[in-house]
Amino acid sequence: MSAIDCALLHHPVRDRAGAVVTTSVTNLDVHDIARSARNYGLSRYYVVTPIEAQHTLVRRITEHWTHGAGRRRMPERHEALELCHPVESLELALADAAQRHGRRPLVIATAARSEGPKRLSFEAGRELAEAARAGTEPVLILFGTGHGLANIVLDSADHVLAPIPGQFGYNHLSVRAAAAIIFDRLLGAR
Amino acid sequence: MSAIDCALLHHPVRDRAGAVVTTSVTNLDVHDIARSARNYGLSRYYVVTPIEAQHTLVRRITEHWTHGAGRRRMPERHEALELCHPVESLELALADAAQRHGRRPLVIATAARSEGPKRLSFEAGRELAEAARAGTEPVLILFGTGHGLANIVLDSADHVLAPIPGQFGYNHLSVRAAAAIIFDRLLGAR
Repeated sequence: MSAIDCALLHHPVRDRAGAVVTTSVTNLDVHDIARSARNYGLSRYYVVTPIEAQHTLVRRITEHWTHGAGRRRMPERHEALELCHPVESLELALADAAQRHGRRPLVIATAARSEGPKRLSFEAGRELAEAARAGTEPVLILFGTGHGLANIVLDSADHVLAPIPGQFGYNHLSVRAAAAIIFDRLLGAR
Repeated sequence: MSAIDCALLHHPVRDRAGAVVTTSVTNLDVHDIARSARNYGLSRYYVVTPIEAQHTLVRRITEHWTHGAGRRRMPERHEALELCHPVESLELALADAAQRHGRRPLVIATAARSEGPKRLSFEAGRELAEAARAGTEPVLILFGTGHGLANIVLDSADHVLAPIPGQFGYNHLSVRAAAAIIFDRLLGAR
């Protein structure tokens, strides 16, 4: 099993004006990122939200597809959704990953903004991801909903991945698209 | 303006059993693929469905964000959604692209299945995309909803792009994730 996990944060994230907010869980974020994570061999996908009712929602989605009628109708979906675990905070995701892998993972945050310290090139990120795939040093990749991860998360991460290059100055991919592209750049066969 | 367009087909596509069906338009397919297309410099995104009521739905989504309250609240979204045009068939998308670019585009179909003729490597696809970006030879990239493009579409395409490599035998990315990865592989800055 690879020692690469990802987490989608619904808190603390930024709103349009830069204020720190909590966003709602989106059904297709659960599905799409789980399917992308499964495709690229990640071993767990943490859905991070402090709102307990949203954990119930995430569990209802995943259980439908991992145990319920969905599994009978579309058996490959459970292989993806079984990676998905709701947790209350980034700290609890880190603690769970540390317990599973035997050591605290390196944290790679992602951001669409190009400014800021600790920037990791995709090439260097690929080396870290390959080491994590081999089980040497676990890695946790963080994605933000809303308008991106709060500064406190970027500040506490070990690395902040370089932004995905946008042509013509556009820089507003969905988090579902960004996660897919980042997994492919870090882990995809070339 | 680049001579690269894409089309998302809701017909003719396959269902789970391989039968040819028409799927429904999904709101997030319109948004996510428009945003990815805009990010990678495509010039038009055809949403292909023979169902007239679905054209009304697509127009209602795009007009909300290109003219309505959405444009005031989130101005960058209109830059993406203005690329989106509903059309009744692949033939009409091709005719429109031919009219806009002055010649019929090369058609590159995409498929998760690995078997089949006319397979185009990502490296060769990148050369075609670069020529289209320079305006030399227009390209139309086709994506299928449901369980993928019908054989009649793959048979009529000039090329069928190699599948995105999945690790561990999983091969069930969402079309939103697949489109993002394919744009990045064909057009992303390296």
